[in-house]
Amino acid sequence: MSNKIIYNPHVSVDCVVFGFDGEKLKVLLIERNIAENNELYNDKKLPGSIILADEDLDAAASRVLTELTGLKNIYLSQFRSFGGPDRTKNPRDILWLENTMQLKIGRIVTVAYVALIKINRKIQVKNDNTQANWYNLNEVTAMNLAFDHGEIIKKGLAHIRHNLDIEPHLLFELLPRKFTISQLRSLYDTVHQTNSDVRNFQKKVAQMPYVIALDEVEERVPHRAARLYKFKKNP
Amino acid sequence: MSNKIIYNPHVSVDCVVFGFDGEKLKVLLIERNIAENNELYNDKKLPGSIILADEDLDAAASRVLTELTGLKNIYLSQFRSFGGPDRTKNPRDILWLENTMQLKIGRIVTVAYVALIKINRKIQVKNDNTQANWYNLNEVTAMNLAFDHGEIIKKGLAHIRHNLDIEPHLLFELLPRKFTISQLRSLYDTVHQTNSDVRNFQKKVAQMPYVIALDEVEERVPHRAARLYKFKKNP
Repeated sequence: MSNKIIYNPHVSVDCVVFGFDGEKLKVLLIERNIAENNELYNDKKLPGSIILADEDLDAAASRVLTELTGLKNIYLSQFRSFGGPDRTKNPRDILWLENTMQLKIGRIVTVAYVALIKINRKIQVKNDNTQANWYNLNEVTAMNLAFDHGEIIKKGLAHIRHNLDIEPHLLFELLPRKFTISQLRSLYDTVHQTNSDVRNFQKKVAQMPYVIALDEVEERVPHRAARLYKFKKNP
Repeated sequence: MSNKIIYNPHVSVDCVVFGFDGEKLKVLLIERNIAENNELYNDKKLPGSIILADEDLDAAASRVLTELTGLKNIYLSQFRSFGGPDRTKNPRDILWLENTMQLKIGRIVTVAYVALIKINRKIQVKNDNTQANWYNLNEVTAMNLAFDHGEIIKKGLAHIRHNLDIEPHLLFELLPRKFTISQLRSLYDTVHQTNSDVRNFQKKVAQMPYVIALDEVEERVPHRAARLYKFKKNP
């Protein structure tokens, strides 16, 4: 054994929930209020908390997400743990933690989970002290989030993109059952933060055997009705 | 906050190092000796240990692997954390931990890393108390390993397979620069635990644009010389 200091960090879970509202990719954050030198400071953080003594990591992630945002039955997938000793270097983060948890806090290793969902249910906030809301991904990138939560969101998005390459059905779950190529392109561009050319995207779709053209077009639209497509899981 | 017990677990890292010796897929394990009721008990575990106070997770994984096996500069990739409260339910595991670490141990959350390497360097064991060795994956599956290390190895292998689908170059790094289809098939079957039909595998290779046939055949072989191929990263 190395003759060095061993130290029990706290272990937490953090949930990166991406939501698609039909137009934009959003991230679920909670508001955090800190009274610092008699001034109220307010910023955003991921829904997350310390795990309990008898709790598995997956169970902790589900519990914490429900407690802080009201969201239930979300498929959360563990993607990475973050444990740099400088995660808690900001005194404001430590102050907030110690006030909230009533615990002396040193270092925290957090196990991060990610989900990608369609935004179509109401978020019920249960805890008076927090407020959960969807924020546009672009906005979030510019925000000064608590801890290393900006970094965790970035890595969560990379994980989602990586998974969509091998499990494309995850993307199609965000679309209506019948969709237009324009809807698909908009979603694709949102997730990949690209700006696809219409014709190039048509070519890309032609190489997706699981996107099936239907003999139907849009109904009741003010513009020229576009052809509808559907996703077929095992083409 | 839930009115429940919060508890500081220990945090460890564990390294699943898969090695290919040209024929078989192996796993690097260390031997563990426990004196229990005056009897010496001996089993195997993954190279792993508790993280130090000032250490990032990635740094801890590299340090621990080097300390326990002598292996250096291995690309370890974090793939999952394991933190079920029943990870340490075996009293033998707790006994060994407390003897080795000189620490009172309750629950341990471990951050697992995986690597896939070519076995071509000598493993130097530095620590008198441990012995690092390569074991055939098939053997390991049947072993009764410490903690949940059997489960961690299974999940590590699944992660490697998943990655090979999107980053095939990782597979070819295990082969000689020029290889035969039979060598490639043998490696493929070993990693995927399949038994590919020769002709079907030829068809599969035909769909791999990054496998390039050379105008060369094997030299100095007792059987009919087979054609050689090479891997081209960006075909």
